[in-house]
Amino acid sequence: MTRPSGRAADQLRAVSLETGFAKYAEGSCLVRFGDTHVLCTASVEEKVPPFLRGQGLGWVTAEYGMLPRATHSRTDREAAKGKQSGRTQEIQRLIGRALRAVTDRKAMGEIQVKIDCDVLQADGGTRTAAITGSYVALHQAFTHLMRIGVLKQIPLIDSVAAISCGIYNGQAVLDLDYAEDSNAQADANFVLTGAGGIVEIQGTAEERPFDEAQFNELLRLARHGIGQLTALQKTALGL
Amino acid sequence: MTRPSGRAADQLRAVSLETGFAKYAEGSCLVRFGDTHVLCTASVEEKVPPFLRGQGLGWVTAEYGMLPRATHSRTDREAAKGKQSGRTQEIQRLIGRALRAVTDRKAMGEIQVKIDCDVLQADGGTRTAAITGSYVALHQAFTHLMRIGVLKQIPLIDSVAAISCGIYNGQAVLDLDYAEDSNAQADANFVLTGAGGIVEIQGTAEERPFDEAQFNELLRLARHGIGQLTALQKTALGL
Amino acid sequence: MTRPSGRAADQLRAVSLETGFAKYAEGSCLVRFGDTHVLCTASVEEKVPPFLRGQGLGWVTAEYGMLPRATHSRTDREAAKGKQSGRTQEIQRLIGRALRAVTDRKAMGEIQVKIDCDVLQADGGTRTAAITGSYVALHQAFTHLMRIGVLKQIPLIDSVAAISCGIYNGQAVLDLDYAEDSNAQADANFVLTGAGGIVEIQGTAEERPFDEAQFNELLRLARHGIGQLTALQKTALGL
Amino acid sequence: MTRPSGRAADQLRAVSLETGFAKYAEGSCLVRFGDTHVLCTASVEEKVPPFLRGQGLGWVTAEYGMLPRATHSRTDREAAKGKQSGRTQEIQRLIGRALRAVTDRKAMGEIQVKIDCDVLQADGGTRTAAITGSYVALHQAFTHLMRIGVLKQIPLIDSVAAISCGIYNGQAVLDLDYAEDSNAQADANFVLTGAGGIVEIQGTAEERPFDEAQFNELLRLARHGIGQLTALQKTALGL
Amino acid sequence: MTRPSGRAADQLRAVSLETGFAKYAEGSCLVRFGDTHVLCTASVEEKVPPFLRGQGLGWVTAEYGMLPRATHSRTDREAAKGKQSGRTQEIQRLIGRALRAVTDRKAMGEIQVKIDCDVLQADGGTRTAAITGSYVALHQAFTHLMRIGVLKQIPLIDSVAAISCGIYNGQAVLDLDYAEDSNAQADANFVLTGAGGIVEIQGTAEERPFDEAQFNELLRLARHGIGQLTALQKTALGL
Amino acid sequence: MTRPSGRAADQLRAVSLETGFAKYAEGSCLVRFGDTHVLCTASVEEKVPPFLRGQGLGWVTAEYGMLPRATHSRTDREAAKGKQSGRTQEIQRLIGRALRAVTDRKAMGEIQVKIDCDVLQADGGTRTAAITGSYVALHQAFTHLMRIGVLKQIPLIDSVAAISCGIYNGQAVLDLDYAEDSNAQADANFVLTGAGGIVEIQGTAEERPFDEAQFNELLRLARHGIGQLTALQKTALGL
Repeated sequence: MTRPSGRAADQLRAVSLETGFAKYAEGSCLVRFGDTHVLCTASVEEKVPPFLRGQGLGWVTAEYGMLPRATHSRTDREAAKGKQSGRTQEIQRLIGRALRAVTDRKAMGEIQVKIDCDVLQADGGTRTAAITGSYVALHQAFTHLMRIGVLKQIPLIDSVAAISCGIYNGQAVLDLDYAEDSNAQADANFVLTGAGGIVEIQGTAEERPFDEAQFNELLRLARHGIGQLTALQKTALGL
Repeated sequence: MTRPSGRAADQLRAVSLETGFAKYAEGSCLVRFGDTHVLCTASVEEKVPPFLRGQGLGWVTAEYGMLPRATHSRTDREAAKGKQSGRTQEIQRLIGRALRAVTDRKAMGEIQVKIDCDVLQADGGTRTAAITGSYVALHQAFTHLMRIGVLKQIPLIDSVAAISCGIYNGQAVLDLDYAEDSNAQADANFVLTGAGGIVEIQGTAEERPFDEAQFNELLRLARHGIGQLTALQKTALGL
Repeated sequence: MTRPSGRAADQLRAVSLETGFAKYAEGSCLVRFGDTHVLCTASVEEKVPPFLRGQGLGWVTAEYGMLPRATHSRTDREAAKGKQSGRTQEIQRLIGRALRAVTDRKAMGEIQVKIDCDVLQADGGTRTAAITGSYVALHQAFTHLMRIGVLKQIPLIDSVAAISCGIYNGQAVLDLDYAEDSNAQADANFVLTGAGGIVEIQGTAEERPFDEAQFNELLRLARHGIGQLTALQKTALGL
Repeated sequence: MTRPSGRAADQLRAVSLETGFAKYAEGSCLVRFGDTHVLCTASVEEKVPPFLRGQGLGWVTAEYGMLPRATHSRTDREAAKGKQSGRTQEIQRLIGRALRAVTDRKAMGEIQVKIDCDVLQADGGTRTAAITGSYVALHQAFTHLMRIGVLKQIPLIDSVAAISCGIYNGQAVLDLDYAEDSNAQADANFVLTGAGGIVEIQGTAEERPFDEAQFNELLRLARHGIGQLTALQKTALGL
Repeated sequence: MTRPSGRAADQLRAVSLETGFAKYAEGSCLVRFGDTHVLCTASVEEKVPPFLRGQGLGWVTAEYGMLPRATHSRTDREAAKGKQSGRTQEIQRLIGRALRAVTDRKAMGEIQVKIDCDVLQADGGTRTAAITGSYVALHQAFTHLMRIGVLKQIPLIDSVAAISCGIYNGQAVLDLDYAEDSNAQADANFVLTGAGGIVEIQGTAEERPFDEAQFNELLRLARHGIGQLTALQKTALGL
Repeated sequence: MTRPSGRAADQLRAVSLETGFAKYAEGSCLVRFGDTHVLCTASVEEKVPPFLRGQGLGWVTAEYGMLPRATHSRTDREAAKGKQSGRTQEIQRLIGRALRAVTDRKAMGEIQVKIDCDVLQADGGTRTAAITGSYVALHQAFTHLMRIGVLKQIPLIDSVAAISCGIYNGQAVLDLDYAEDSNAQADANFVLTGAGGIVEIQGTAEERPFDEAQFNELLRLARHGIGQLTALQKTALGL
């Protein structure tokens, strides 16, 4: 079997995490997984949503969008249609949960960080790239809050990154691109912490149900890829 | 450890699948997982959505809703607010995918079945109850189409059911009710076929990341519960 | 002339008022007028809408919805379409007015009761069934507020119920079902109190104008039917 | 008792029906009931709505709106809020039904007339003024279609007009203005044909239920008023 | 060259400014530029929008609408479509800016005036008629506030009016009507003060770019027309 | 006087036009006017909007958006709010008009090009940067259509670019950045062709009306700047 890109089964696409792309945001990271490019920004707000006020807890939330021509053929603009698709809502809820799972919301205090993930170019795996880059932007925003004296320490208990795996032509492969994603027999997104803890698993059989052995193989690949992403996150943050 | 309901760790709530609740639908099932009650109906339409026309394939899709006072305190009506929440959209997409995974869309021909899952009462696990009941309603609708001569056989390649599991008070337990769900350390929904194939896995760490051993224990419990649900589905369908 | 159901001209369908259907609501009634089934719940809220604050008056309001497959063929879900139809809004405004007409809003104090009427199955007359069942749910909610010491007496000055009448095949008949409703020459909904007072009359000529004698005959039938509904309400409430 | 306006109990406000106010419409009438001014236009379209195509039947429908400062204090613009209120929808459905009740839709053929009723100034009774003026605009549009040879005769089987009556200070009065309307014990709108047939009755108890004798007195007043409106319609149309 | 209306190149249509058309508004003016008729009302509100509170500054804002049959063929009602068009929003923003440019918002204090411009009939130039009439309505509202002692002087530093000019059949003409507007090579709207200051210029090439000499000719015509409109405004206000 | 950026009154910010930024689009240009960065893409569609079908004419239209954290403080996402602001609609209509003014829609045939302008970073002048970059993207898309044989020549009759000018601290300056824009006495956007024709002029007095001499000085500056932008467009397109 050959992957369309010629990659080995356990090989990530070329990944880069470019910080500082957005001049005004408290944190920002342009993450590239091959031809998938997502701009992640972190914006600090001094107040938490109404349902949290007065509880001494912070909040991290995310929004996700895609430029109309990020895709091979043009997609209608959600702002023009007047609503976000179910897919968009699923993804932005996932990103928010992933980041909150590694945030110490008590140490954070009543501050909110809003993450915006905007896909500039899409070639599969936008949600996993978005989580991986958002962690970098969030870390930067917390660092900024330390620098200006609002926080005493970074309220993160671990790092978090995400990768997709799938069964393509009967074989488990890491980091699906669009050509693979649209023909995979199964597709799973894994969100893991730097220490190896599982934050979220979403596995879906695309055509036929899969079995436990296949699932375990996907998880093994994901651990392999996320180890590399975690290292790249550290480098990007200068840690 | 004791569960709030006094159930054993691997014990389902009282489950019932009552067919024929909706007089006019081609298939219907009122599914009860304890105090969670969901009315599932299947409506046959003679045409498929535009993106499928002329391909000889059928379509199964689902919508999900909750009566405003299904819940402990009243929830705003989505029709009055003018949009469906992200949670609603996630759930209805999940139900549709689960049912399509066991449907032979080619054998079905250019027919559409719309599943409506309306939660009359909610005590946790509404999406897993909805999938379990929807399969029964879908099977009935296909049986109806055989009876009137539109189909020659039931275009289902397997049965499908779903159950939630979670880590509650540090222990893996089956079929979370609301009291458990709102305090679980981790929560996973499993959609499995009658033959044991995995259709969908959605695992989420609520507070702290979980590990692989815990995840495997959840999957083991799910297999146990889904075995029982599959038997109840057969009985409800008179198979 | 024979009615499609074989009923006499002044005969109601089989009516039942089942209380306690919704476990969590402060009041609830599943009302059945033959094959028309409406679940009515009453939810107590501790604050009134902004336009009433500080006036010492309570508020009773209603929302109405229909499950997509309550009807003979499936109706689109209003939450999915993103708005409530004009028909839905007319009906929910009518239900609210009818209940407020028998409520002593001063004795009620600054409390709000929200009534939700959700049609589980529709065979004509859903709005009249909804009003009849909502009165029961509202009474239960007030009884609950007495029991917990918030109210000293039930702030209701009379009971209220509703029924439709129409001219079918040239004859005045009571409690139209769907088969009659869709072929009636005229159609009128009457909302009357237990003491016989008129709360609301809505009469509509469907094909040709009707005359005063016909209208008076419809009102006479309505009085007859509402007498029976009032007795059933008392029984359901154990009065 | 004295009415705020000094009118006798059975006295209409000064009524005028000014045709030709809108230069471009196929029919138009600026109707004034005292300080209530409604511009009614009739627009002919060559095709009927999709649900009627191919049946050889015409359609008459209506839309209703109010200028923001038609009222004593400014009302928010519905176009800016992004939706029509329940009240607006109720009224425009009523106007449409009233006009269709006197239209011979078979004789009309597959043509649609859209009536727009826009309230320039509101002092109570806007819906009854709108129906009364719309009939004039509709008649003009049909006359125009005869003149250009599309129709051979006016497809109207009778005229239609509407008036409100109510119980004010315990007495039945005709044609409520705003001062009366906002303090009436009961309020009823009557839509009658020129020949005296009943098209629509909507009676509502505002504070306390009313009785049958009161209702009959309101109907008597309505007949009196509508007799006068019918004569004014004939004059306006030059019949 | 002849203009469709037979007017001279520098000739306005018949202009009238009728005050007091709307009985309840604090200021109102029915402005007519030939067959273009716009009702402008000014409504005073005692509070400014949230973004201005506590700054001691007033606010003037505008909304614009068009009756569905103001136009030669019927236009869909924006309230029914559920949103205002881009054109509507452009125009109402322009009217608001124009009026604020001559208002002394400090002298006004924390009061808001909402201008509503509703087009009763449209034959080109609705936005310029709306600005010209709105100034009159605004002046009246301020006069009313002086009369009741809320203001000590009229907080207007100049008057403001607007007119369109365009290149039609190769020649610069003043005050385009619909027949000219829809065939113009270029179209420009000028908003000028009574003292000759420029408040807003919007020039658009419809088919081919235009040159500076042409533009200057359009401005010269505009000055000519606005001189006349300013005089008419004074007369209408009795100044 | 010194400008905040230290630029001379007639000095543009550093401008760059980077083509090929978006891999999948038929044309794309990342335009930078200093810290204002706008990604412009051109997407070819084989059919024109319904109102143009069968006329043999092409169509060019534009949509505009801004990433939430393009700005100094975060702006709410329009897709999440469910509608585009009036400002967004004004800008996208302006971009579309500007491009159509230099397009030979007859030579283009029944093809549509959709331009998307997404602001990645905003420091004033986003609409003028968007027009300048969109022309480049549009030219590329037409070149692509020539290359694949759909067009025989580029259907552009001239180039088009845009720049803002304003009165800042009493002096006319070219290409306002955000610091200037938010404190300008007047602000004008000029859209000119490469040959010097005027396509669109939008001048607005921000605080006090301005005079004709000032306006002419702004136009002179604009001509100067657009000369430079035109040269940069040629270079970017390799002409």
